[in-house]
Amino acid sequence: MNLNEKTIHTESIYKGAIIDLEVHDVELPDGTTSKRELVFHNGAVAVCPVTADNKVILVKQFRKPAEKPLLEIPAGKLEKGEARISAAKRELEEETGYIADDLDLIAEMYGSPGFSNEKISIYLANELKSGQMNLDDDEFIELEYYDLNEIEKMLKNQYFEDAKTIIALQHLILNYNDYN
Amino acid sequence: MNLNEKTIHTESIYKGAIIDLEVHDVELPDGTTSKRELVFHNGAVAVCPVTADNKVILVKQFRKPAEKPLLEIPAGKLEKGEARISAAKRELEEETGYIADDLDLIAEMYGSPGFSNEKISIYLANELKSGQMNLDDDEFIELEYYDLNEIEKMLKNQYFEDAKTIIALQHLILNYNDYN
Repeated sequence: MNLNEKTIHTESIYKGAIIDLEVHDVELPDGTTSKRELVFHNGAVAVCPVTADNKVILVKQFRKPAEKPLLEIPAGKLEKGEARISAAKRELEEETGYIADDLDLIAEMYGSPGFSNEKISIYLANELKSGQMNLDDDEFIELEYYDLNEIEKMLKNQYFEDAKTIIALQHLILNYNDYN
Repeated sequence: MNLNEKTIHTESIYKGAIIDLEVHDVELPDGTTSKRELVFHNGAVAVCPVTADNKVILVKQFRKPAEKPLLEIPAGKLEKGEARISAAKRELEEETGYIADDLDLIAEMYGSPGFSNEKISIYLANELKSGQMNLDDDEFIELEYYDLNEIEKMLKNQYFEDAKTIIALQHLILNYNDYN
């Protein structure tokens, strides 16, 4: 079956700093039409940093949509035209003060594929070197360090609520032997 | 440090069928202000169904934001006032034709916590019984069945691009022995 939905009309509702909102009329596989509310985002990167003594560096940050702080792997938005791997290295250094020469791509994911094109590339970083922390003006974060036993327990207790973070940490536990 | 961001002004930009968009002026921890573009969503549920012969049932569905079909665990939006567990059972039956009396909560996740409050509850379902498939008018899907060896390979090859699906399948591989 051809599952494609063809856009037949586009209405721009909002153009913002981070997201744009459009409503598309689409033609469905059976020829009928429907509406799709679409949130366009430039994309993001995230890095799961693991120190030489096997501690994961996590970032606690207030998330307005959740109305509470979430504990997440370091992450940030792509700048216009920026390569994903460069953005990942930049965000890692800005948020944690660590530099990694090599990043391993773990996953590329849509967090809300029903309405948003935000695609997050998730990397693993080890062999960390000291760099320079440098937060955005509207960015307030706290760093926390957890060893892998703690991470495993926190996953079991469903402590984490951020999708990219759960994916990265499950991947780390699943593939631990490959990284040592 | 108190990380909270307090809303001091709210502007409603769009009220849609699936999402609402608001822009909030917030007061940051240092007393300065910033803007937050927020997409409000009623929430969603997802179910990872595993058959008696250890096959995972996945749903292929065109995702307009990604402009391609994605292979995902069955999922859907919460109806107004609907309990999450009821919604999960309803979506499982509507999309796959299977009923599960018991669902195990695997994770609750924000897919895009930077701009959206969409929270997805992910369940695991086994001991499936036959029910009645019943798709929405604008829903066109294909069912696919994969055994756990195939799932493990597909995860390693980064085949999956949907966050809730990666989380459910990594959880399944990590905890396989608990379910058998």
